[in-house]
Amino acid sequence: MSTGVRRRMGVEERRQQLIGVALELFSRRSPDEVSIDEIAAAAGISRPLVYHYFPGKLSLYEAALKRASEDLASRFNEPHDGPLGARLLRVMHRFFAFVDEHGPGFSALMRGGPAVGSSTTNALVDSVRQAAYEQILSHLGVSDPPARLELVVRSWISLAESTALIWLDGRRIPREELESQLVQNLGALLAVSAGHDEEMAVLLRPLLKQEPGDGPFADLVTRLVALAS
Amino acid sequence: MSTGVRRRMGVEERRQQLIGVALELFSRRSPDEVSIDEIAAAAGISRPLVYHYFPGKLSLYEAALKRASEDLASRFNEPHDGPLGARLLRVMHRFFAFVDEHGPGFSALMRGGPAVGSSTTNALVDSVRQAAYEQILSHLGVSDPPARLELVVRSWISLAESTALIWLDGRRIPREELESQLVQNLGALLAVSAGHDEEMAVLLRPLLKQEPGDGPFADLVTRLVALAS
Repeated sequence: MSTGVRRRMGVEERRQQLIGVALELFSRRSPDEVSIDEIAAAAGISRPLVYHYFPGKLSLYEAALKRASEDLASRFNEPHDGPLGARLLRVMHRFFAFVDEHGPGFSALMRGGPAVGSSTTNALVDSVRQAAYEQILSHLGVSDPPARLELVVRSWISLAESTALIWLDGRRIPREELESQLVQNLGALLAVSAGHDEEMAVLLRPLLKQEPGDGPFADLVTRLVALAS
Repeated sequence: MSTGVRRRMGVEERRQQLIGVALELFSRRSPDEVSIDEIAAAAGISRPLVYHYFPGKLSLYEAALKRASEDLASRFNEPHDGPLGARLLRVMHRFFAFVDEHGPGFSALMRGGPAVGSSTTNALVDSVRQAAYEQILSHLGVSDPPARLELVVRSWISLAESTALIWLDGRRIPREELESQLVQNLGALLAVSAGHDEEMAVLLRPLLKQEPGDGPFADLVTRLVALAS
């Protein structure tokens, strides 16, 4: 009687193992360059057995991407405790840790391509962007964002993506510098928009007032004053 | 003897006409939704005749995209005259005019998709990004950019793309505001980076010093001071 249960568990465990093996390989080489043969070998099973668990290469890739997307989206979850700048710094630290861990897989996903440019994968990428957007809004304390705030937050998310992609190409700048810089970039982009629009200014002023003297936003002001002098 | 010459001209003219008709249709609906039948009807020729000039739907789309890419890349060309901020404002004005004219075609291209996600189209998009990057660098007076400058300029280009895409979705913000804001965003992102890195500060200070009191960068400082007060 228990054989069926064990067998069902075994299938799911094997699927999870194959996903883990695939993600590990994608962290070193682009998914386009990783074959099912390699995944089978790394998992210690035969190629036909891989196809027993996943009907095709794309279905394994999509399952791997789904797990990675859920992991990435979860990294934007941050408790609503303490100053905003410090929260965003912790989020950026986890985001860059993900980018660092997944390297070529992250690049291939964001740039699209034969193995990763399907409508399923595009929908997964969009769901991560949406999760990031909603998290940022919740930390800004806004539930019904005006058009300008939506634009700043969504375009900043795309700035964070491209910053990560460019950083991966050679890792020529310390990661921590970019984490802090991206938080300050969000502050700068919000400030530019608030400079043009009173509704944005009304949203932004109380947020900035709550920031402590040792947070990233105060740090930015100090650095800009030093730059101007 | 002249028939061959006239005939060759006719083919090229017809190809150019079909490209123009396609781009006009893509400015109102996504390329995915525009059929060869519609292009043939709008051009006043039969469907088989379209295939005489272009072997398939994709080849016509790629030719249309190629012309649009060359048009877009050319809009980044700006004489090296007058203050930097004013030059960049003119470039952003031409960029947004392109986005405004091409609407759905621009969105489809930047988001990828069945008709526009080929490696040829990706290469064309990358070539426009590269042209924009090189133009901006030349206006900054830098030929051998440090890693941080490359990152700021390239990530700002992606910010400009996503700003344009979000703007197209409803056009809820005046175009001119975003043109000016994007120029100020570049200044802000450069300043944040210069706040972290002395090499960037050394590059940026002389550029800012040359800016007049009525340029977009001075305008940003005025707006930020008003915001902080």
